[in-house]
Amino acid sequence: MESFFKVKTPKEVLGIMDGFGPLGEEEISLGDSLGRILSKDVLSPEDLPGFARSSMDGYAVKAEDTFGATESLPALLAVSGEVLMGERPRINVGQGQAVRISTGGMLPKGADGVVMVEYCHLIDEDTLEVNRAISPLENVIQPGDDVQKGDRVLKQGHQMRPQDVGVMAGLGKTKAFFYRKPRVAIISTGDEIVGVDKQPLPGQVRDMNRYTLSSFCLQEGAEPIYVGLCPDDFEPMKAMVERALEKADSVWISGGSSVGTRDLTLQVLETLPQFELLVHGISISPGKPTIIGQSGLRSVIGLPGHVGSALVVAKVFLSRLIHRLSGCSEVSERFPDPEARLSRNVESASGREDYVRVRVVEDRGRLVAEPIFGKSGLISTLVEADAFIRIDRNAEGLYQGETVKLIFF
Amino acid sequence: MESFFKVKTPKEVLGIMDGFGPLGEEEISLGDSLGRILSKDVLSPEDLPGFARSSMDGYAVKAEDTFGATESLPALLAVSGEVLMGERPRINVGQGQAVRISTGGMLPKGADGVVMVEYCHLIDEDTLEVNRAISPLENVIQPGDDVQKGDRVLKQGHQMRPQDVGVMAGLGKTKAFFYRKPRVAIISTGDEIVGVDKQPLPGQVRDMNRYTLSSFCLQEGAEPIYVGLCPDDFEPMKAMVERALEKADSVWISGGSSVGTRDLTLQVLETLPQFELLVHGISISPGKPTIIGQSGLRSVIGLPGHVGSALVVAKVFLSRLIHRLSGCSEVSERFPDPEARLSRNVESASGREDYVRVRVVEDRGRLVAEPIFGKSGLISTLVEADAFIRIDRNAEGLYQGETVKLIFF
Repeated sequence: MESFFKVKTPKEVLGIMDGFGPLGEEEISLGDSLGRILSKDVLSPEDLPGFARSSMDGYAVKAEDTFGATESLPALLAVSGEVLMGERPRINVGQGQAVRISTGGMLPKGADGVVMVEYCHLIDEDTLEVNRAISPLENVIQPGDDVQKGDRVLKQGHQMRPQDVGVMAGLGKTKAFFYRKPRVAIISTGDEIVGVDKQPLPGQVRDMNRYTLSSFCLQEGAEPIYVGLCPDDFEPMKAMVERALEKADSVWISGGSSVGTRDLTLQVLETLPQFELLVHGISISPGKPTIIGQSGLRSVIGLPGHVGSALVVAKVFLSRLIHRLSGCSEVSERFPDPEARLSRNVESASGREDYVRVRVVEDRGRLVAEPIFGKSGLISTLVEADAFIRIDRNAEGLYQGETVKLIFF
Repeated sequence: MESFFKVKTPKEVLGIMDGFGPLGEEEISLGDSLGRILSKDVLSPEDLPGFARSSMDGYAVKAEDTFGATESLPALLAVSGEVLMGERPRINVGQGQAVRISTGGMLPKGADGVVMVEYCHLIDEDTLEVNRAISPLENVIQPGDDVQKGDRVLKQGHQMRPQDVGVMAGLGKTKAFFYRKPRVAIISTGDEIVGVDKQPLPGQVRDMNRYTLSSFCLQEGAEPIYVGLCPDDFEPMKAMVERALEKADSVWISGGSSVGTRDLTLQVLETLPQFELLVHGISISPGKPTIIGQSGLRSVIGLPGHVGSALVVAKVFLSRLIHRLSGCSEVSERFPDPEARLSRNVESASGREDYVRVRVVEDRGRLVAEPIFGKSGLISTLVEADAFIRIDRNAEGLYQGETVKLIFF
């Protein structure tokens, strides 16, 4: 059986996720671009600033007129006017003259520097004492000093932060091209699952995965599409998955608490056009019975039914999938996870990577990870937890006091 | 002049921000609740699970029938049926009997434990070998084991994560009460500022603050309302601020590059109903010329005109304001900032807190903060930067190799 050979290590699964490329691009208004990923480099269409401007409040002067000026021997200059904000100054700064200027004001002709107001003293309306020398171009930003026409201001694959949106505004780029957000279709399966608005009968539970996975997609920058709740039957499941594939870039089917259903999901996936099974089981706990395949260019994921297991798989592998589909070249992978000290010993079976829920507390400025134990399958511990810690597949556990990396979720 | 005494330290300003309380609450559908802050505790309306369920795939048995069972001396049981998912099993487990059950299946009458399938071996269709003893209630989650009716599942002030949304779904809570998102009105001022879609003339620059601050609000969970671009004139500014106060919980006016304009903003604010000036200047750099006041219960903020300065003030103080208005009792303040090693010496004037832009790189698993220098007022360095570092007001700088906290922005 081919699928027997498809049990993969976490590292292999991440490698498989990296094989999925970004989706198409779309043009978006600047106001909607926060958090989006650039699909093209942003080049500056102009010099910034476009004119020589003062970086301080003070007086525009000829620098040479201040040479040698000190507090005990100030230079005396004639105040000949003021630069108004937002205007090209009509005034000219001649020898021995000074013109009042504010931060951001355009440097008037004849001036080649600005003396900060702190070093100036008005003797009368027309006479200025300058008690410090400046060098030419001091406190002046010249055209293109900040950004030159043609400079790459932001890189393809960069995720937009407020300051990036601001800089695009400064360059007059009211629109730009971004990768399309991945659309993720979400299907919950299981004869025991009922809708959230239903009162479950004995043996039934409400559909937690729909909401957990949809929220997870939103958090990671994907657009969730809820397709439906499906019984453990081949034909309805096949019809629902086919419908999902029509509208989504990735289809996530969670469920299969029973052994029979797990097989059912795979049987359905194998009927999809150009289907290739990539992963059938991952050597992690929880989350082992995960199926990853592709139908053409679309990824199709079979997730464990239990919300705690599904969320580990989502956090560890599917966030990577979403980032790749989003064209993101940075985020999360860029910086190491924060670290904490483990509060007690944790056992683990070797041969698989274990994800253990922890509460994170602060103790004298350092983080401490307190493992949360409880019967398998509890959801209350999922809410109590702040993060996961990972136990290596070759380790038989972790000792109290060891440093662990925190995976916030 | 009263305002002279209103220059505050950063700590004092944060204390003032903490004085602003949460806004009203509103009922929201579960699907829209990600990232929102609960305005009430969530109590469980029922036991979870609602019935005794198996936490493993295996066989439901009477535990005593397995007592003493080992691999060399297995217990032999008669398979008398299967529990179907989503149904109350009609079958009864008698002495010497075993019933097939899947994870999540309802425990049938008569059984008091589940033997994992790994420890079972079917000799024929009807006969099961069990080669490990279980204790009563092993692999069974009893009603209320996870959550008991009336338990507090989530706390007022908690920010919803995907798993929290999922647990609410599990409890059938399709709606809940959350604090209203703060509405922030954004006004840009300055005779030199033109709209983003305009080609600036010499002396003019485009309105970067509108987009930077709006995106910042979105990022922090507030709802930005762009009010307009205003010249440095008393009457139009007053009219615009009054209009802003009608629709927002907080009004942010950025601008005032010139000395005159800074005074203008304060003059306008002082005409507002029940206006109280709380802060006139903060001992930080950049960001010193910040004004914070309140008109009735609404906060009114005068921000520096330069986008880099405005963003420092926003990140350090206004995110705290938004969190308080949002009713958030956790987030960001809960865990210490990540740390890095400083790549080189940085000087600083004592008597004020300095915020220096840094690039963050990884070097052998440790973070390194590389200060970014450049003329005051550059925006390109804002885009290059990953984070700020803070230099204490009593320090005259930081040394290469020192550990610094990273404030990502």
